[in-house]
Amino acid sequence: MTTKTSVMRAEIAEQPEALRRTFSELLPLRKEIEALGRETEHVLFIARGSSDNAAVYGGYLLQVHTGRLATLGSPSVATVYGSRLDLSKVLAVAISQSGKTEEIVDTMRWAADCGARTVAVTNGADSTLAEEADVALVTRAGKELAVPATKTYNTQLAALAVLALGLGAKLDPGELELVPQGIEETLAAPTDALEEIVERMVAVQGAVISGRGLAFSTALEAALKLKEACYTHAMGMSYADLLHGPIAVVDPRTPTLLMAAPDGPTLQGTVALAERARSAGSPVFGFGGGEALAAASDLSVPVPDVPEWVSPMNLIVPAQLLTERLARRLGYDPDVPRGLNKVTQTS
Amino acid sequence: MTTKTSVMRAEIAEQPEALRRTFSELLPLRKEIEALGRETEHVLFIARGSSDNAAVYGGYLLQVHTGRLATLGSPSVATVYGSRLDLSKVLAVAISQSGKTEEIVDTMRWAADCGARTVAVTNGADSTLAEEADVALVTRAGKELAVPATKTYNTQLAALAVLALGLGAKLDPGELELVPQGIEETLAAPTDALEEIVERMVAVQGAVISGRGLAFSTALEAALKLKEACYTHAMGMSYADLLHGPIAVVDPRTPTLLMAAPDGPTLQGTVALAERARSAGSPVFGFGGGEALAAASDLSVPVPDVPEWVSPMNLIVPAQLLTERLARRLGYDPDVPRGLNKVTQTS
Repeated sequence: MTTKTSVMRAEIAEQPEALRRTFSELLPLRKEIEALGRETEHVLFIARGSSDNAAVYGGYLLQVHTGRLATLGSPSVATVYGSRLDLSKVLAVAISQSGKTEEIVDTMRWAADCGARTVAVTNGADSTLAEEADVALVTRAGKELAVPATKTYNTQLAALAVLALGLGAKLDPGELELVPQGIEETLAAPTDALEEIVERMVAVQGAVISGRGLAFSTALEAALKLKEACYTHAMGMSYADLLHGPIAVVDPRTPTLLMAAPDGPTLQGTVALAERARSAGSPVFGFGGGEALAAASDLSVPVPDVPEWVSPMNLIVPAQLLTERLARRLGYDPDVPRGLNKVTQTS
Repeated sequence: MTTKTSVMRAEIAEQPEALRRTFSELLPLRKEIEALGRETEHVLFIARGSSDNAAVYGGYLLQVHTGRLATLGSPSVATVYGSRLDLSKVLAVAISQSGKTEEIVDTMRWAADCGARTVAVTNGADSTLAEEADVALVTRAGKELAVPATKTYNTQLAALAVLALGLGAKLDPGELELVPQGIEETLAAPTDALEEIVERMVAVQGAVISGRGLAFSTALEAALKLKEACYTHAMGMSYADLLHGPIAVVDPRTPTLLMAAPDGPTLQGTVALAERARSAGSPVFGFGGGEALAAASDLSVPVPDVPEWVSPMNLIVPAQLLTERLARRLGYDPDVPRGLNKVTQTS
């Protein structure tokens, strides 16, 4: 057992306050978002890494709750191939924690040149991304020091929830208040199940992480965290893509981590996947998914019962805690994974 | 050494003829595609599994060469959430080998209901998908018996190349003829390097597979093949996403397989990634990428020198051969991976 704590752990615990600050700063911007929405149709996300996982949440949220097509762009179409597209009906949403990643700044500029209106989602208040966007949704995570993004990721989800409300989602903004409260519950809860999952992951080289719909973003983000801080060969896949081939990798040496909201239309499929993975001998660890997923899993971590549309902000927290504990248990420093810098530059 | 051959191996060898048949059937449909193109703006792909990897190729090809926004849809928005979007300017391209996967058929119907025009890319001439689409691009792969898709995948790429030409790509259709010829060269080439990569992969649990731009589709498809037939924890990631965190997993136990066209604007970055992975101690295996990638790799498999836009059809072949050989070397039957059926039903 390791006892040394980390900056990452402290930043995980700052999420309730970071989210409260972000909601209270951004909710008043709904009118400006609404105006941009009237001028545009399709939403195109521009992001990489954790921010790309946040974009997956944004894509489902907008498509399910605003009736607007919302998909992910490929920055290299702009930055490597220098292609020109007609984006005159497009609302380009660029997401970058620092607001300084050149690839994202360049791609947002390119989108504007191609006729798009632009939104920046960033924790960098004075960043180029925030300065150049038509509307800047500046998250209030505070300075993040650990390399694996936690509070900056979660406040990006918060900004995207506000974006959905601004674009006309028929959802109750009051439900956002349940999120920080839920995270406080998770942080105060007994850690027995999490500790046991950590112990069962120590000798594991690879794992499958899955979720569907709104929770797919959580699965991708959990897989990214485990790859960057624990060097686990974590494969994040949607429920449906998993069944189209990769399900073959699920076996006794390969645990399956499943993420699901406490209810919603994807829960049943996630429970069925838990059963299928267990029948292939895979240890199944459930995160959220209420009683149904807990019953179908070998070990499970409960997540507070909040509406599906806000649940990814709660659901990622136990996966962050797992990553931080497993990294320390393996003798790694979760704050500074090998080979990584806080601001990634790609071109 | 195993000597038993497989149906998968025979089907890999059928690709030159399958591609010739497909090009000659589909090239005359360019006028019909052009007409659909005039009525629409954004292209939205609807696909899963290997077909989704083909869609990644289609997305880059259309965006780089036709100036049209082309992104991937999320079928569960339709099938699980029952959302309604305005798709009146959308050309929905549904891709399914069998044309019978209900999720894809249902999502294409939903897209049409939402106002989209539709194209089907399928090997099922009499399938529902082909019957219901505005234009059906029926690939001529012949019957495919092995569960891992090879010739049906590659003929999907062929259909998407024709789609790009129909939508106005300024590319020379004559260059398509280089593809079957190139595959014949690959099939006739000495297998020493491939055999050595197989031997170095035998004890490996996980691997990183990367490529960028047009070759990103090949990386994803190679990773899917290795997962489904060899049960390798293969993580397919774009060059840029890899640098945003997952690069931490690259180490001496984790080989890096890199895919690149012989030239084009993504080659330099791929070579730089090879150098970075090697400096982290990872064995680097290069597929294609000409002299530059070969020089930066521990072992490399040459791929015929064809223009970048058609190269993914050549580039996937050595990855298919690697998968088939490695599966047999590990004592698995590549034709029938555990837990999989030929037609996957998801909802």
